[in-house]
Amino acid sequence: MKHIAESTVRRLSLYLRFLEEHKQRGLDTISSGDLASLGGTTSAQVRKDLSFFGSFGTRGLGYSVTALAHRIREILGLEREWRVIIVGAGKIGAALAQYRGFRERGFRVVGIYDVDAARIGMQLEQITVKDQREMDADIVKLKPDIALIAVPSEAAQPLVDRVTKAGVRGILNFAPSPLHAGSGVALRNVDMALELEILSYALVSAKG
Amino acid sequence: MKHIAESTVRRLSLYLRFLEEHKQRGLDTISSGDLASLGGTTSAQVRKDLSFFGSFGTRGLGYSVTALAHRIREILGLEREWRVIIVGAGKIGAALAQYRGFRERGFRVVGIYDVDAARIGMQLEQITVKDQREMDADIVKLKPDIALIAVPSEAAQPLVDRVTKAGVRGILNFAPSPLHAGSGVALRNVDMALELEILSYALVSAKG
Repeated sequence: MKHIAESTVRRLSLYLRFLEEHKQRGLDTISSGDLASLGGTTSAQVRKDLSFFGSFGTRGLGYSVTALAHRIREILGLEREWRVIIVGAGKIGAALAQYRGFRERGFRVVGIYDVDAARIGMQLEQITVKDQREMDADIVKLKPDIALIAVPSEAAQPLVDRVTKAGVRGILNFAPSPLHAGSGVALRNVDMALELEILSYALVSAKG
Repeated sequence: MKHIAESTVRRLSLYLRFLEEHKQRGLDTISSGDLASLGGTTSAQVRKDLSFFGSFGTRGLGYSVTALAHRIREILGLEREWRVIIVGAGKIGAALAQYRGFRERGFRVVGIYDVDAARIGMQLEQITVKDQREMDADIVKLKPDIALIAVPSEAAQPLVDRVTKAGVRGILNFAPSPLHAGSGVALRNVDMALELEILSYALVSAKG
């Protein structure tokens, strides 16, 4: 498979959202111009992004909403279900467990783990929070693809090492410090404080 | 002020985190090589990023931890306090209100708003959740710089229009659809489902 730049993956993901909205409104085709204005980019960029994966559009008619949405889902690996565990059932972990957007994109939570006796046994969206000591055996049994790490910074790196050792190949980290994983593991850090710092810079530079 | 690319802002933010960790451990200087290996980049990139803002390093001695951290904080606008309101006190809003990382970076929550009678009056980290109808008057009075939008997709865009009309100049959106704001407003979309899709792509492309 050809490697696609992350910025392109981001735009494909956005196009997919617009295609799905379009489909819900009963529309069969969409123009590159519409996709561009919805996604805040140019028609030329849309055509370039999509032509990379084959020919979808018909000049003057635009793209078939169904065919293009299907192809983008295929490219992004969203045609299959991804099994997810959540490590940490505090505020962030609980919010993730209940986040509608995940389920809508085919990410299914198969386990939630914590170390705190007050949280173990709690129900989060039909999943019972289990003792973190059961996690490693569960990973072998449940074979989750992805682990969402929602624990304090100091606990995060050892947990990444532990879940990847047990066989997890994708990590989404919500702890505020960046983590590292071995080769063959896809890891992303979602740093909300970092997002605020980028905003902060945008605000000061606009005033300067 | 010179405009800095977002990728550079991200790295500066990461360097700052390492500088603070270094300082806590009692170290006075840091080399570009250390910053590079911690940040997953090259020494050349670190030197290029930092030289953009003036001369900090001393050949053979490295950078002064205190001076460099101070300068990066200045550049990112973190030397001042940012006033933040949270719109939506559901799971995501409550998690944000209690997110330690925000307070540590100088972002102070001054108001939380919801439309749900069951949430209005609730205490979140010493802030009482208020009726969303009081929000516009509060914005004029409290002058928040930033609004965190944590409401369902369909409610999000009208709220962005409302808070920016009342004077907010920075928006961080946690609703799963991308939002738009007028010129002069800095807006960022934090899309957790999108992060999972990027992970999904990384997993399928690694297998392909």
